[in-house]
Amino acid sequence: MFELHKTATTTKARLGTLTTDHGTIETPIFMPVGTLGTVKAVKQDELIRKVKAQIILGNTYHLYLRPGCEIIENAGGLHSFISWDHPILTDSGGYQIFSLSDNRELKEEGAHFKSHLDGSKHLFTPENVVEIQRILGSDIMMILDECPPYPSSHDYAKESMELTHRWEKRGRDAFLNSIPHYNHQQFQFGIVQGGTYPDLRKESAKYITDLDFEGIAIGGLSVGEPIELMYEMTDLNTDYLPKEKPRYLMGVGKPANLLHCIARGIDMFDCVLPTRNARNGQIFTPDGYVNIRNAKWKNHNRPLDPDFPTDLCSRYKMSYIHHLFRNNELLGLALASLHNLTFYLWLMEEARNRIADDTFHSWYKQKAELLDTKI
Amino acid sequence: MFELHKTATTTKARLGTLTTDHGTIETPIFMPVGTLGTVKAVKQDELIRKVKAQIILGNTYHLYLRPGCEIIENAGGLHSFISWDHPILTDSGGYQIFSLSDNRELKEEGAHFKSHLDGSKHLFTPENVVEIQRILGSDIMMILDECPPYPSSHDYAKESMELTHRWEKRGRDAFLNSIPHYNHQQFQFGIVQGGTYPDLRKESAKYITDLDFEGIAIGGLSVGEPIELMYEMTDLNTDYLPKEKPRYLMGVGKPANLLHCIARGIDMFDCVLPTRNARNGQIFTPDGYVNIRNAKWKNHNRPLDPDFPTDLCSRYKMSYIHHLFRNNELLGLALASLHNLTFYLWLMEEARNRIADDTFHSWYKQKAELLDTKI
Ligand SMILES: [Zn+2]
Ligand SMILES: [Zn+2]
Repeated sequence: MFELHKTATTTKARLGTLTTDHGTIETPIFMPVGTLGTVKAVKQDELIRKVKAQIILGNTYHLYLRPGCEIIENAGGLHSFISWDHPILTDSGGYQIFSLSDNRELKEEGAHFKSHLDGSKHLFTPENVVEIQRILGSDIMMILDECPPYPSSHDYAKESMELTHRWEKRGRDAFLNSIPHYNHQQFQFGIVQGGTYPDLRKESAKYITDLDFEGIAIGGLSVGEPIELMYEMTDLNTDYLPKEKPRYLMGVGKPANLLHCIARGIDMFDCVLPTRNARNGQIFTPDGYVNIRNAKWKNHNRPLDPDFPTDLCSRYKMSYIHHLFRNNELLGLALASLHNLTFYLWLMEEARNRIADDTFHSWYKQKAELLDTKI
Repeated sequence: MFELHKTATTTKARLGTLTTDHGTIETPIFMPVGTLGTVKAVKQDELIRKVKAQIILGNTYHLYLRPGCEIIENAGGLHSFISWDHPILTDSGGYQIFSLSDNRELKEEGAHFKSHLDGSKHLFTPENVVEIQRILGSDIMMILDECPPYPSSHDYAKESMELTHRWEKRGRDAFLNSIPHYNHQQFQFGIVQGGTYPDLRKESAKYITDLDFEGIAIGGLSVGEPIELMYEMTDLNTDYLPKEKPRYLMGVGKPANLLHCIARGIDMFDCVLPTRNARNGQIFTPDGYVNIRNAKWKNHNRPLDPDFPTDLCSRYKMSYIHHLFRNNELLGLALASLHNLTFYLWLMEEARNRIADDTFHSWYKQKAELLDTKI
């Protein structure tokens, strides 16, 4: 499934390929988030032709509630339902139960929660989350975990991690004792937890490694902790993960964060940030970011960057994009979403090229600083 | 500018071409509406490649308020501001003053109105509306008129028409005594009024014809009158319009209306209906229309019409489009807007082909009935 082609020498950056029945993914990679089976404001053919997305993410919690498993199973699975014949990863719903439902109860059996939409009651267990993702038919499914908030006490983080470990054992068993519903293989990724405590992170990495998932995610980060602490935990975790498995850092992040985490040995990322911030008018470029709603762009009658291959950057005047945002025009949201995702995938390609030609270590820190600059 | 290639024998349907410095338009044609310089939810390159739009419309009232003339003039005109190197028609703002501002006052000099956005006071005169459209740089500009509501008394309709006639004379003089701001030619269309009174419609058609505009619009219809009355007034008006000038029926309408009005001698149409209704989930097809929000599509796991060349029709399952609309996803609005406009332009091409091969008369009534059917 995963092939490691190269590890850099002065950083932990890696080059690899991840092969699924729906296509091969080059890592490091960023996965656009398609919460409800649509990457907001971007068309499927644009994801392929323009963004050059290699894999997208769907949210089990959201899809389970809307449209529900029955409709997706009737449609022949998520790929068929959304007309996307390329790899899909689905999360387990654990994070959404934690972040969206203010009415949840964790028990040994699983997580009871009320829908954020209509208050209806539901239960996710390690086992039924496998079954739901069998119905979705994602190429990569995630294990059910609990994501403790930041900050959490060592006691709480340890207890939460231990519950997650028991759930992951049950979830792995459920996966190994079930089969795909459609004509393609599915993989399952485990999730490392442990809060911001090095001893727990180390213990969790070892425990999860032993369950022999097809890949391993680092969860529970990017939940409000200082960025340096996030980098530190990531760095520590990857030291304890097997080299031959793909590593996925969940919910990260800004462009600069991605480069720093690639340097710490991460292969896969997902985040709503590029599309959510696009809808708020934040545009990422190779030289920093722009807030297009700012009055400075009102009379700026040139394209932002004629050399960058998106219509937002090279076709349209900034004054026009500013006008679209000031008037809440759908075209603004569409152009900015398409642009930001294209930028994220471009950045991953750039990183892969620099790992390949051994210039990543001399490039990424300065680039990360530039990417964090406001234009 | 306009060349009439053919007039059908058993109907008044016509085939023509309208040549501007930004390209040649085949008539009958439908013009997508880009109120604020964007056809809502559709990208400029999609308008060309997919919709096959030949000309789009911009609203002077809206563009004058947002972003304002100064920004558009700085950008080099509307074509340059919105990155659209094809024909543009701009209306005069008369209709928006009537429909959007609840604080307007008609005087001999022009129309005083308060912005529907911030209540600021403005005055449109026949002369400054020409100057504003010189700044916009549209290929075709419209004259300032007053559009009386339906119903209006004969007295009011006559008074209003006479004011419109005096304004049109002034507006035509202002046009003839001014020059384009950019390196392309501009044309000016007059507007026939007269409410729903045959004697006034006839008088107005003659008066406007004498002012020798490059084209003539029929205004004041599709404002709430019965559809048969609209057809009747259109039919009557085209009897009194010169054959060698293009005829534009403003603000019409549904697909069936377009066919009926082509049969009555109309060459050009515009309407927000295809995009506005798209955003409400109404999808037009060659066999009738669909309300995609209807529960009947919830589990419909086939494309709507694999033979129609839009992604909405031939790529996606109806269950997915339904899901997108039920969850207010931007992708739904974008796919439906793109589809409906593609359908409108397809319908115009179909009409042109049938006028060309003399089958229009035997086709249009039955087709219009089918188009009005709910699927
Ligand atoms: Zn099943
Ligand atoms: Zn001027």
